[in-house]
Amino acid sequence: MKTLPKLSGVFRVFALGALLTLGLPVQAQTDPLPSWNDGAAKKAIVEFVQATTTQGSPQFVPPAERIATFDQDGTLWVEHPMYSQVMYILESVPALVKAKPELAKVAPFSTVLEVLKGDRAAISKLTMPDLEKLAAATLTGMPVATFQAEAKKWLAEAKDPRWKKPYTELTYLPMQEVLKYLRANGYKTYIVTGGGQDFVRVYSDATYGIPPEQVIGTAGGTKYGYTKDGKPFLTKEPKLMLNDNNAGKPEGIHLMIGRRPYAAFGNSTGDRQMLEYTKSGDGARLSMLVLHDDAKREYAYGPAKGLPDSKVGTFPQSLYDEATKQGWIVISMKDDWKRIFSFE
Amino acid sequence: MKTLPKLSGVFRVFALGALLTLGLPVQAQTDPLPSWNDGAAKKAIVEFVQATTTQGSPQFVPPAERIATFDQDGTLWVEHPMYSQVMYILESVPALVKAKPELAKVAPFSTVLEVLKGDRAAISKLTMPDLEKLAAATLTGMPVATFQAEAKKWLAEAKDPRWKKPYTELTYLPMQEVLKYLRANGYKTYIVTGGGQDFVRVYSDATYGIPPEQVIGTAGGTKYGYTKDGKPFLTKEPKLMLNDNNAGKPEGIHLMIGRRPYAAFGNSTGDRQMLEYTKSGDGARLSMLVLHDDAKREYAYGPAKGLPDSKVGTFPQSLYDEATKQGWIVISMKDDWKRIFSFE
Repeated sequence: MKTLPKLSGVFRVFALGALLTLGLPVQAQTDPLPSWNDGAAKKAIVEFVQATTTQGSPQFVPPAERIATFDQDGTLWVEHPMYSQVMYILESVPALVKAKPELAKVAPFSTVLEVLKGDRAAISKLTMPDLEKLAAATLTGMPVATFQAEAKKWLAEAKDPRWKKPYTELTYLPMQEVLKYLRANGYKTYIVTGGGQDFVRVYSDATYGIPPEQVIGTAGGTKYGYTKDGKPFLTKEPKLMLNDNNAGKPEGIHLMIGRRPYAAFGNSTGDRQMLEYTKSGDGARLSMLVLHDDAKREYAYGPAKGLPDSKVGTFPQSLYDEATKQGWIVISMKDDWKRIFSFE
Repeated sequence: MKTLPKLSGVFRVFALGALLTLGLPVQAQTDPLPSWNDGAAKKAIVEFVQATTTQGSPQFVPPAERIATFDQDGTLWVEHPMYSQVMYILESVPALVKAKPELAKVAPFSTVLEVLKGDRAAISKLTMPDLEKLAAATLTGMPVATFQAEAKKWLAEAKDPRWKKPYTELTYLPMQEVLKYLRANGYKTYIVTGGGQDFVRVYSDATYGIPPEQVIGTAGGTKYGYTKDGKPFLTKEPKLMLNDNNAGKPEGIHLMIGRRPYAAFGNSTGDRQMLEYTKSGDGARLSMLVLHDDAKREYAYGPAKGLPDSKVGTFPQSLYDEATKQGWIVISMKDDWKRIFSFE
């Protein structure tokens, strides 16, 4: 079924729907990846899709097994100067201090208040244990529905400091095209993020077309309980269930999906094991890494390839060398992406 | 779109596919639940589906939010005289003892060997801590792929003692019809079981048409590691991550799906919180309980309604009373099911 039969109007729409339902490849009428420049990265994606979805191909993958996983921060959207969820945590501190004024003079809450008053340098005082304490205080202890409403409100109001746009608009257009292209070819797309599972689920559907059940992230436990009038609800607990980073990514994929992905996309050391696990499966497998080498249109950091070092989304030379050795494809933002944002 | 346009041949198939894709209700040409007798239970299912999937209905649910969850043991398949997975654990002991002969004289392994030699009464000697020890020994410590292969082999060979059929054939035809009916109306069907997630995932697709990523069960952690030649793999660890029973069911649903189900089916105390959580959502919600009251065609146990008591799949009178109070529908196997098994 290489071409669509000539149908008009409503039946054409039906026929197309049926083709997608049956998981048959739909011949691209137009370029599925218009924001990509021609090159090895774009070619690898198109060839992977054709190899795994064309009936009769030796590398054909049955529709039910078509799983593709995407890291979020730095892979699907901007992660500099700081992960959006960390901004959420910091910007939630004033409301917390308002409710518990005694925290205003206690570190790390006091440090965060300094940062928010404009002392950006104070951010470097925050250690990992500080961030964990802040995360526990702002992300746990409340009903799930309360957290969801608060995160939704913040996302609607907060703006990225450089582009002055909501964080959810800072997604990479080329990656949005990859998500849609894979889905149009029967792939189920998942986010597999070190970020908080509950946080990302608040906007994943609107931002990426990915429903909550296809978001795997760092997850805490919840506790089932009752309101005074007997209505059941879940409370977010400060108990880590899954640290979805590094080896936690393939472990989380097994827990939540139970199958090995055919394609995986990341951009930093935290994604290494997911790419390795994906690529080591049988048949055609695609592992890709986004390299932030475009200081002008976005940011430049590595330290791979002599780019500036960064604690946020580190991409060391060792990861670059391993990618070369293992056949993982590195995407150069500068060279491979014609456009980065839809608002450009 | 109440009726299909008159199309012939291939276009009719396409149009039907498209209707399913778009999540529109397909007018039933024939009874979708032929193994059900007419009555309150069947009526509740059909009315729920119509209310939540008919465009313009005040209780219409968008396709993406249509989630239905099913307990497995005693709800989708036979759980008496003993849960199939417990039989797997017991019948895996001889191979374990062959590999580690020193276990042959150590309880609880020695007790299991007595049971398997025909001393069925010895099974009552096994305590919960014994079962946990046996589960850890037979379900963990090996690579995920090894476990999957062993479970698959056992399922292909093992037979239920009463019907002399593979366990996977002992599924309830009326419930299979409910699964298909809900899916045909855009519902995503999930298993939410106290049984082992990895175990149920081995056969869920073939047995219920439910893919591994839609099986939520009691889950242990895995550990990412490498073979001698550097190939990555996951090992099943004896570390409990999710005890998917009682309050663990809504907690597991939040972890794995992130939305409240619109319909939930169970048969015992372990399902109480899942039914409660489901039913307490807004709009039309369906919570149902299978009551095993058919000693002739299957088994009879409660102790609700004066049925014999049972440690396996207990359905106490208090659960029955709560169902009545909360509007959860009790399904009587004897009265509501015309046929129980497809092989009848």
